[in-house]
Amino acid sequence: MFNDSILHDLNRRFDHAALHSETTEADIHRLCNEAITHNFYSVAVNPIWTATAVSLLKNSDVQVLGVSGFPLGAIRTDSKIDEAVRGVEDGATEIDMVANIGWIVSGQMNRAESEIAMIRKALPKEVVLKVIIEAGKLDTDQQITATKAVIHAGAQFVKTCTGFFGGATVDQVTTLHNTANGQIEVKASGGIRTLEDSLALLKAGATRLGSSASPAIVRKWQEISNSMHKNL
Amino acid sequence: MFNDSILHDLNRRFDHAALHSETTEADIHRLCNEAITHNFYSVAVNPIWTATAVSLLKNSDVQVLGVSGFPLGAIRTDSKIDEAVRGVEDGATEIDMVANIGWIVSGQMNRAESEIAMIRKALPKEVVLKVIIEAGKLDTDQQITATKAVIHAGAQFVKTCTGFFGGATVDQVTTLHNTANGQIEVKASGGIRTLEDSLALLKAGATRLGSSASPAIVRKWQEISNSMHKNL
Repeated sequence: MFNDSILHDLNRRFDHAALHSETTEADIHRLCNEAITHNFYSVAVNPIWTATAVSLLKNSDVQVLGVSGFPLGAIRTDSKIDEAVRGVEDGATEIDMVANIGWIVSGQMNRAESEIAMIRKALPKEVVLKVIIEAGKLDTDQQITATKAVIHAGAQFVKTCTGFFGGATVDQVTTLHNTANGQIEVKASGGIRTLEDSLALLKAGATRLGSSASPAIVRKWQEISNSMHKNL
Repeated sequence: MFNDSILHDLNRRFDHAALHSETTEADIHRLCNEAITHNFYSVAVNPIWTATAVSLLKNSDVQVLGVSGFPLGAIRTDSKIDEAVRGVEDGATEIDMVANIGWIVSGQMNRAESEIAMIRKALPKEVVLKVIIEAGKLDTDQQITATKAVIHAGAQFVKTCTGFFGGATVDQVTTLHNTANGQIEVKASGGIRTLEDSLALLKAGATRLGSSASPAIVRKWQEISNSMHKNL
């Protein structure tokens, strides 16, 4: 039924996220504790919390993901670069940036691509750059063209959504995955609340999931795995 | 029924806003044309569009409002300062910044106030600084304490909402207005769609309104004014 290789170590597919404006330091502590408990791949936090999360996770395998231009993608390019670089200075090993959605929907794809390339160039090679294209605001052609721009700009992932304007769909992930064609990975994010959501998006080609419901999702998977083993 | 002084030149109460991620250059042209037609106080745009709007409005009385830390308020303080300063460099005469909501809801009001004061200090004296406290995420006590922090930090306006997480209410404006007690002004923003909304918020003490429906609102007011004059 499922491709076992996708599900191997499901926990490591998750960027465990707390990205609301009202997120507090106590929330960041809880987020990082949950990430350690479940050995998630990373925590995703707003820039004001990156250094705090890095400090809390320093003795773990959990990475910290910083964001840039989040969630609108409509700040100046120099400000996006500064946010991305400062995130890395604070200890983030991955940056999830938001592309300029206004440029994408109006066909100014060269500007969008050039901006991504500038941010890629400003970051150390080992830092993973993911680019959010807010797929829910794009038609299928725009999703394809934007994914190509992300590839040409040298980023490592195309990511569906910020989560603030609707969630990832299987159709979006399929489009992004087919366009990526193995050159970059696909991260699905936004509205992922259940194990069923997660498995559907992974089957469609996502290799990373962003969610704030990650602990409940992987607990459910553990329950099912345990019950399968018992029945063998 | 209405305080005439509040309604005098209603158009000049409006910051006409286009703040979505998918806003295009064509949208900014339309926004600025509408602002000129209706002689709004300002247009409110994301940082990538500030210079464009300033250029389009250079021969008009319409100001351009820049934003900082919009809409989450959860970027680093140095990034907020840079965004605000760059907005002014691009020609904005007012900056609407988002306070750190996580600090406010967790009672770290000194940090929130100190951040606002740093941004105020980084801006030229003649630039108006408005501080968004995202009142819909705060209880009444937090709205009061946050407004006091805005006053102490030296800003000119406290502003209810970004518009991304629910709209301004009469209760919020009343609370902010009573706390401000004439020391700063109150801007209501978020979900203001009708003349009725606008008048209720102005009556509650707001002196500025942020809306993307500003043209329809002031056209309605003009219709009513014209019909009153006809009936005299």
